[in-house]
Amino acid sequence: MTTATSPRHIEHPAREDIRLGPVLHALSDPIRLRIVCAMAHGRGEAFSCSYFALPVTKSTSTHHFRVLRESGVVRQTYQGTAKLNSLRRADLDALFPGLLDSVLESADAEAHRERPHPQ
Amino acid sequence: MTTATSPRHIEHPAREDIRLGPVLHALSDPIRLRIVCAMAHGRGEAFSCSYFALPVTKSTSTHHFRVLRESGVVRQTYQGTAKLNSLRRADLDALFPGLLDSVLESADAEAHRERPHPQ
Repeated sequence: MTTATSPRHIEHPAREDIRLGPVLHALSDPIRLRIVCAMAHGRGEAFSCSYFALPVTKSTSTHHFRVLRESGVVRQTYQGTAKLNSLRRADLDALFPGLLDSVLESADAEAHRERPHPQ
Repeated sequence: MTTATSPRHIEHPAREDIRLGPVLHALSDPIRLRIVCAMAHGRGEAFSCSYFALPVTKSTSTHHFRVLRESGVVRQTYQGTAKLNSLRRADLDALFPGLLDSVLESADAEAHRERPHPQ
């Protein structure tokens, strides 16, 4: 089941159609994980795609946001002509309790290993 | 850094070279996740590739085990001519505390949603 389409409507999987495999795949890319980590720190805020200042072309960025949306990790809505992105934390936490937090903590741990604080 | 090679040696990433992205990618495939879930239930045992009775060809199965090995999720060793596979749980738990368990629990929750017990 997906939500109905209209010119201003963007398709999203319903909560019950979100699957673990596509969610893990969405989170397995460093750029997408960076987007998700930034959104998680925003605590429910919605962000435009340009907010994230990604080191990729616009079409690659669009691709990454589509993968995140189609897997059920983010929700995209229009505000005027801008697409806003928000993390589907409530849906993910309900389906996979603890998963998103453990991925975010793992990403954080890895970033600290790779860029250790100076002594 | 990888372990030294010899005809009977299989290359593995050292613990410190295991990265979150490739681990999540390895776990994002349903066949690979099924292998990992089965190994996790084995509590440290090593299993031959044929143990898992996968619904794929031998070459696809070999590919999946290679992705699991190269990402650092499983360790493969020779016993005679057979390759044995074991989960690198200690390495994964040390690098990403709680991650593997939350993925396994999520897979279990999803399996129960898709095949609900009869009333």
